[in-house]
Amino acid sequence: MTAFVRDQWYVAAYGREVGRELLGRTVLGEPVLLYRTEDGRAVAMSERCVHRRFPLSQAPSRLDGDRVVCGYHGFTYGTDGGCVSVPGQQRIPRTARLKTYPVVEQDSFVWVWIGDREPGDALPPRAPWLDSPDYTVVSGMEPIDGDYGLLVDNLMDLSHETYLHGGYIGTPEIAETPITTEVDDTAGIVCVSRHMDDAECPPFYAKSTGIEGRITRWQDVEYHAPCLYLLHSRIAPVGAPGPNPDGTDPHAFHVEVVYGITPSTERTTYDFWAVARDFALDDQDVTEFLHTNNRTVVMQDVVALNVLQKSLDTEQAGYQELSINIDTGGLAARRILARLAAAR
Amino acid sequence: MTAFVRDQWYVAAYGREVGRELLGRTVLGEPVLLYRTEDGRAVAMSERCVHRRFPLSQAPSRLDGDRVVCGYHGFTYGTDGGCVSVPGQQRIPRTARLKTYPVVEQDSFVWVWIGDREPGDALPPRAPWLDSPDYTVVSGMEPIDGDYGLLVDNLMDLSHETYLHGGYIGTPEIAETPITTEVDDTAGIVCVSRHMDDAECPPFYAKSTGIEGRITRWQDVEYHAPCLYLLHSRIAPVGAPGPNPDGTDPHAFHVEVVYGITPSTERTTYDFWAVARDFALDDQDVTEFLHTNNRTVVMQDVVALNVLQKSLDTEQAGYQELSINIDTGGLAARRILARLAAAR
Amino acid sequence: MTAFVRDQWYVAAYGREVGRELLGRTVLGEPVLLYRTEDGRAVAMSERCVHRRFPLSQAPSRLDGDRVVCGYHGFTYGTDGGCVSVPGQQRIPRTARLKTYPVVEQDSFVWVWIGDREPGDALPPRAPWLDSPDYTVVSGMEPIDGDYGLLVDNLMDLSHETYLHGGYIGTPEIAETPITTEVDDTAGIVCVSRHMDDAECPPFYAKSTGIEGRITRWQDVEYHAPCLYLLHSRIAPVGAPGPNPDGTDPHAFHVEVVYGITPSTERTTYDFWAVARDFALDDQDVTEFLHTNNRTVVMQDVVALNVLQKSLDTEQAGYQELSINIDTGGLAARRILARLAAAR
Repeated sequence: MTAFVRDQWYVAAYGREVGRELLGRTVLGEPVLLYRTEDGRAVAMSERCVHRRFPLSQAPSRLDGDRVVCGYHGFTYGTDGGCVSVPGQQRIPRTARLKTYPVVEQDSFVWVWIGDREPGDALPPRAPWLDSPDYTVVSGMEPIDGDYGLLVDNLMDLSHETYLHGGYIGTPEIAETPITTEVDDTAGIVCVSRHMDDAECPPFYAKSTGIEGRITRWQDVEYHAPCLYLLHSRIAPVGAPGPNPDGTDPHAFHVEVVYGITPSTERTTYDFWAVARDFALDDQDVTEFLHTNNRTVVMQDVVALNVLQKSLDTEQAGYQELSINIDTGGLAARRILARLAAAR
Repeated sequence: MTAFVRDQWYVAAYGREVGRELLGRTVLGEPVLLYRTEDGRAVAMSERCVHRRFPLSQAPSRLDGDRVVCGYHGFTYGTDGGCVSVPGQQRIPRTARLKTYPVVEQDSFVWVWIGDREPGDALPPRAPWLDSPDYTVVSGMEPIDGDYGLLVDNLMDLSHETYLHGGYIGTPEIAETPITTEVDDTAGIVCVSRHMDDAECPPFYAKSTGIEGRITRWQDVEYHAPCLYLLHSRIAPVGAPGPNPDGTDPHAFHVEVVYGITPSTERTTYDFWAVARDFALDDQDVTEFLHTNNRTVVMQDVVALNVLQKSLDTEQAGYQELSINIDTGGLAARRILARLAAAR
Repeated sequence: MTAFVRDQWYVAAYGREVGRELLGRTVLGEPVLLYRTEDGRAVAMSERCVHRRFPLSQAPSRLDGDRVVCGYHGFTYGTDGGCVSVPGQQRIPRTARLKTYPVVEQDSFVWVWIGDREPGDALPPRAPWLDSPDYTVVSGMEPIDGDYGLLVDNLMDLSHETYLHGGYIGTPEIAETPITTEVDDTAGIVCVSRHMDDAECPPFYAKSTGIEGRITRWQDVEYHAPCLYLLHSRIAPVGAPGPNPDGTDPHAFHVEVVYGITPSTERTTYDFWAVARDFALDDQDVTEFLHTNNRTVVMQDVVALNVLQKSLDTEQAGYQELSINIDTGGLAARRILARLAAAR
């Protein structure tokens, strides 16, 4: 399995998932309880009661104002994790306190810090398109029964779109076109670029952009290890002008694909996926079409990775995998993850 | 997990479950076959054929008179476990014999002795209300996917009624009222008492007793480690006279709650529950109401304990639980179980 | 568990199962991909892509002519296992090659050789009735959730027919009649014979042969370790003449029962079963009757063996089984399997 990287921010939920109901998520093996206080602040703490380990997201556990009441014996906790009430006695044991987790709500995600030291000035990486008025977003979360490293591998090598997602977002040019890879080991960022000058337009994009002929298609991957994956996707009719020197790019369609890759247990992963577009912003048909089809594509990956995990589980000892040029980005990501995991 | 205590009587079944069909139960990890002979005697023996370990409660295994015929190759056993017939030959191997288990049928239960020595004079503890003409009983058995110690913990600390069974048998006074605990280490008995002088009457009891106002509610727990749990429950209108010096108590309603706590495997448990009342003896509506609602309450525990076992299974190493006054009885029970398990 | 015997032929599929769709089977723990080339030849190779171990029988993996295209990233393989195309580059890594398996298609089965050395002159054992014009065959394959040794045990001792298959193929005489056993250790063949001169005709055979009275019933088992089991079954009315010196036997009905016993994983097994008869060759009603009823009998075994495996999984340490005369053939088979497994 891929080692966990602690002392990092991870996407625990979408902001819309965190409210006045208790939500439980397991991040890097730690059970985390999430809810929103009456004044709207997202908080995170251990999801297990200190008394007998009852899961605090499990009914009849409940919120009482901003306090969490355990559904088993009524141990009650404040937003700072401190226990404020126990049954049958006035004295609260000094050690009755839930671990709390630093929380940042940013770019539609609720990020939690998992680690042994404090985050200090460290902030989660950005995905500003997800709550920008200039973009319309479709998104979701799918659990994967597999090591998070399988999802990193999957996303770092988009040549699989041609095969696993053929007929959806894949066309022959993706697998045919060589990649350029740049690795910033210090920052823990891997960039993989594939620029196709004259490519078939997948039905996916033809339908949503209205382009009828062949396209220029750029895929610029930017992976911020361990948790955030960005795919800057640019589609334009062949022959259309490129971006302006000032960064504006009025002749192209832009899609920003964002993945929050959150290890849950050693062999389960939360796959937070979001797709932001800068066109047809108010076209509800396009929104529905992209939501349905992007989810279909994500589920093709989920099914494949679940199968792959089962293959690896029964693989005989001593097997070796074989890597080629397309794997350059994925192998760089693995090296960074291994280094980060070991560095703690 | 909680260690098994051998050389003890355990509830293997209700008498009504043991008849002319072969019944298999696993007690302390031992597969036990139960049936009733033609003259009505309950017998228990190993549930695995000596030949190839086929389970003797599995069809087409069957009874032939008082003999058990294995459904695989026809090895046939008498009530003393001795093999009386094998296929293809007249000679019966001397060692072809199933282990038998001492059986006592008492208080509606079929008890079996699990251990390495004989029970001698030891008899199972009593729950005489369960087949007394002065009581009407509702009962059942629910399997739990959890360590039996979790059920002992649950039952020894009734403050959980306020939270887990709120709206059923729980009211605020239970968690609020301090307990008195008495431990008889030699006899292996733990008593926990909670006497509420002026308490809300839970709908559960209001409906079945007809009491309309507040109540005096006594809960006297008497746990006979490892297997039998008794809750003597007394309900009376506030202000009603107490029990007479001779033990009679005509102004109160009495409910005797009995649990047979039978470890099946290391993480499964049989939860035999029975509720005997000394009022509305012939009122079928009350019987149905109490059967339905007591089963609902038991299932609230079962669901919670199944969840708790899963929590513990994935708990990270080195976790510590925190105990308070309400746990005094449960901790005493654990100490006695540990001592009994080690003493063998 | 029963040790695997490598360097042997195993039945991987019926010929009819292998076609222009990719078929995956796991034999002795090895994932095997089977398909038929455009010119009709059955081929077998490793079912896991060399790149990232994606299962090649899993959609969207597919055939392109005689080549296998991995559904994840498009690695493409020829029938010799050699990789002929990878995405994004022209150069194919020298080591990009799937292990291939020797294949023999014979007697309606597709046999694969599992081992470390080549088969050389070794050929699979024969079951010629399965594609002979003189016989009509019903057949199928059922997966068993159990060690293959349990199926060998089951088939070597037909006394179980009296009990597990009573009312189908079992009658009292089978369990009552002693067996004769012959073992050829060198050839790895065990023969078990049971000749019943005057036996009840099971409804199974009464209906298919039209015999109305009692029968002479011969069961001659011939087990070729590890994989092929033959049961030569002869049924004739009591008093009918026996076989002629030249081997012809016009007064009897013959049923050749064939099992391919293929270990899949340590606790799963493919149970290939086929029943060939030399009577009522074109009677479709008899064919349907025998297909339905033989499958029912096989499923009685499957259910029993699945249960038996679960019994063994939870059996306490140190248990001993007890063997008697009927087990002579099965014990001989176990000895041969152990010797073959150790001899490699």
